[in-house]
Amino acid sequence: MLRQKIPATPSIRRLPFYLHIIKNVQSEGYEFISGTVIAQELDLEPIQVRKDLAITGIVGKPKKGYPVAALIAAIEHFLGWDTKRNAVIIGAGNLATALTGYQEFKFHGLNFVAAFDTDRRKVGSSIHGVPVFSLDTLKEQVHALKATIAILTVPSAHAQETADKIAETDIKAIWNFTNVKLKAPKGIVCQREDLTSGYAMLSIMLNNLKPHRVKR
Amino acid sequence: MLRQKIPATPSIRRLPFYLHIIKNVQSEGYEFISGTVIAQELDLEPIQVRKDLAITGIVGKPKKGYPVAALIAAIEHFLGWDTKRNAVIIGAGNLATALTGYQEFKFHGLNFVAAFDTDRRKVGSSIHGVPVFSLDTLKEQVHALKATIAILTVPSAHAQETADKIAETDIKAIWNFTNVKLKAPKGIVCQREDLTSGYAMLSIMLNNLKPHRVKR
Repeated sequence: MLRQKIPATPSIRRLPFYLHIIKNVQSEGYEFISGTVIAQELDLEPIQVRKDLAITGIVGKPKKGYPVAALIAAIEHFLGWDTKRNAVIIGAGNLATALTGYQEFKFHGLNFVAAFDTDRRKVGSSIHGVPVFSLDTLKEQVHALKATIAILTVPSAHAQETADKIAETDIKAIWNFTNVKLKAPKGIVCQREDLTSGYAMLSIMLNNLKPHRVKR
Repeated sequence: MLRQKIPATPSIRRLPFYLHIIKNVQSEGYEFISGTVIAQELDLEPIQVRKDLAITGIVGKPKKGYPVAALIAAIEHFLGWDTKRNAVIIGAGNLATALTGYQEFKFHGLNFVAAFDTDRRKVGSSIHGVPVFSLDTLKEQVHALKATIAILTVPSAHAQETADKIAETDIKAIWNFTNVKLKAPKGIVCQREDLTSGYAMLSIMLNNLKPHRVKR
């Protein structure tokens, strides 16, 4: 795996939230939005919002705020979401069905071109219009379909061996939905998505509702 | 929504990763694990690991490290994962099917007791053994089933109205998988899960693979 330092992870993670709010504002016909309004919408400090947005290279105008169209373009360009990226999804189960049906991704350039499974009953079917192929054909299909992203939704027990298969293809990035920390091959970046992290946050908030408080 | 400060969000989000590694170590028969080993497994600094684990109240022993069983118990207790919590899932679609089938949650006390939908064809069916009821019966079922968590997987356009319905029940926490920032009612905590945030991270890493680098 490449071990490059990624700038300001929490800031990057917030950018999609900004984008969502700013697009709403645009659809309501506004041409400018102030950092303070964005901050209020997201329960953040205005200074935090200005810092976060600054990483995209855009600066607000005094009194007017940020030009909405330019701000959207800046965020999308910073994230590379103005470029279409072909993705394959490996493991054609329920999560794959949920992800391929998630409309939001399409607006961000994520283009599902194929799904793969080892289950012969699934091969030849399709999920939300995405054809399911045999995992044996991964390398050829990835090449033919010009895919650069693999979304991994196989059972955790098969995660590493599947990552090793992915390493033999043209894939440049793995979005890992299993709970295994992959030993990723050279030249492939990995992003792990762990739903239990979100549940940990929810649990802590629930704990804090009770009389005993969490001490730091 | 309650606006309490939650301690150290990134630390809390990392706890499930620690738990996963430590349980693996336990299953291999080890009784102690060093912070340095955990740090290596997760590409973190050892000092960061020690700080994160300190919030659970546990301290490692010089040379021996952390006692594995006590560390697992401390993390689970800190997160409240040693207590069973009943949850309902609202919107019985593909994401609901994926979440109810996700084995990991069971080990963390998250117990799916019912799903709800407005689609009459789904009512009466079940997903991974979880019965699907009509949304009209939400309040009574939540009470009868002693549920405290609602997982929201409805289409975003229906998110707020569904949250308003949840507000009339005994639910204490909403885990929001829609892309709407909910105006949550008093006494209910909200945790929003946004898959596009993970995609933003992946996108930035992909950008960094190319010759042009992101500047900060």
